[in-house]
Amino acid sequence: MFEQQSYILRLIEELSKIPGIGKKTAQRISFFLLKSEKENVINLAKAIVDAREKTVYCSNCNNITDIDPCQICQDVSRTRKICIVEEPFNIYSIEKTQLYSGYYHVLHGNLSPLSGVGPDELKLSNLKSRIKESGIEEIILATSPTTEGNATAHYITELLKHMDVKISRLALGLPIGADIDFVDSITIAKAIEGRIQV
Amino acid sequence: MFEQQSYILRLIEELSKIPGIGKKTAQRISFFLLKSEKENVINLAKAIVDAREKTVYCSNCNNITDIDPCQICQDVSRTRKICIVEEPFNIYSIEKTQLYSGYYHVLHGNLSPLSGVGPDELKLSNLKSRIKESGIEEIILATSPTTEGNATAHYITELLKHMDVKISRLALGLPIGADIDFVDSITIAKAIEGRIQV
Repeated sequence: MFEQQSYILRLIEELSKIPGIGKKTAQRISFFLLKSEKENVINLAKAIVDAREKTVYCSNCNNITDIDPCQICQDVSRTRKICIVEEPFNIYSIEKTQLYSGYYHVLHGNLSPLSGVGPDELKLSNLKSRIKESGIEEIILATSPTTEGNATAHYITELLKHMDVKISRLALGLPIGADIDFVDSITIAKAIEGRIQV
Repeated sequence: MFEQQSYILRLIEELSKIPGIGKKTAQRISFFLLKSEKENVINLAKAIVDAREKTVYCSNCNNITDIDPCQICQDVSRTRKICIVEEPFNIYSIEKTQLYSGYYHVLHGNLSPLSGVGPDELKLSNLKSRIKESGIEEIILATSPTTEGNATAHYITELLKHMDVKISRLALGLPIGADIDFVDSITIAKAIEGRIQV
């Protein structure tokens, strides 16, 4: 029946391509947009195109940025640390804590032999030279505590072991607010191993 | 720190305006789009603008459509029934059942005196003439079983009571797959009232 409702169907289809947006959500968003002020809808479309067309990867840390090198890399007041993250998005999460004021290095992925992602696919080529040239004192590995994230952290640790730089990883343990009965036993084991004297 | 990352922030902000998309989801979608093929991103933006600019409300039933009157209104093979729904989106849900093959009438809302939505705000002006001119035999009220939806259904029932047309409402009862212990008691009461002999 709706075959010829092409513009609406095309919008639903395009929205459904975004991970985490199912058919139903795409329909809901589509009808919201169809009923919105035309100006707001055009602003959204423009924001999408602008963000995609006018941003680049920082040639230094691989963050997505409007200016190259990115604002963080240009900030000379930051501490001599590099936090290694999987995705640009992770930088936002870490910055929000206001607990870290060093630099970043975005891998754009994790080692994943099964998916054919080896060390050459990760953006690591300039990491050693960054450490040397900027006098970096500590590398914080902030990859996920997953098989792939652990493999990546291990690989980078090996890569840098002959360099004069401290290497650390984010702590594993209970997330704030968790009910211990609902936390998996590996996490509890890690929390016990990493327990802190009070 | 990220103040100058204006294009990314603007995209996150625009996406956050969509109901059901929080800050975190907006960030996730933004970074997905930033990492997508430029062509796909432009297609999405184009689909958004096209859907908004090239669709209109059907002058007959108020559905959102590419052509006016809409495809459903143009389909003379449909049965002489009109199903009254709140929003264009509801039509998709009902069509998907393949159990109904009549026409529709979209109200674009419900009566809601508290929000200042009275009968004049609902798209009802041509309903009576539609019934007369198309020889409609049944009106199915498919407004939500909420205070507003019930008020709307009641108002339309009164509006049409002197017309020679059967009026029905969607049945209330247990949703398929529901655990009776988790269904509210009003729904159970309605399911008991509307019980069907087997």
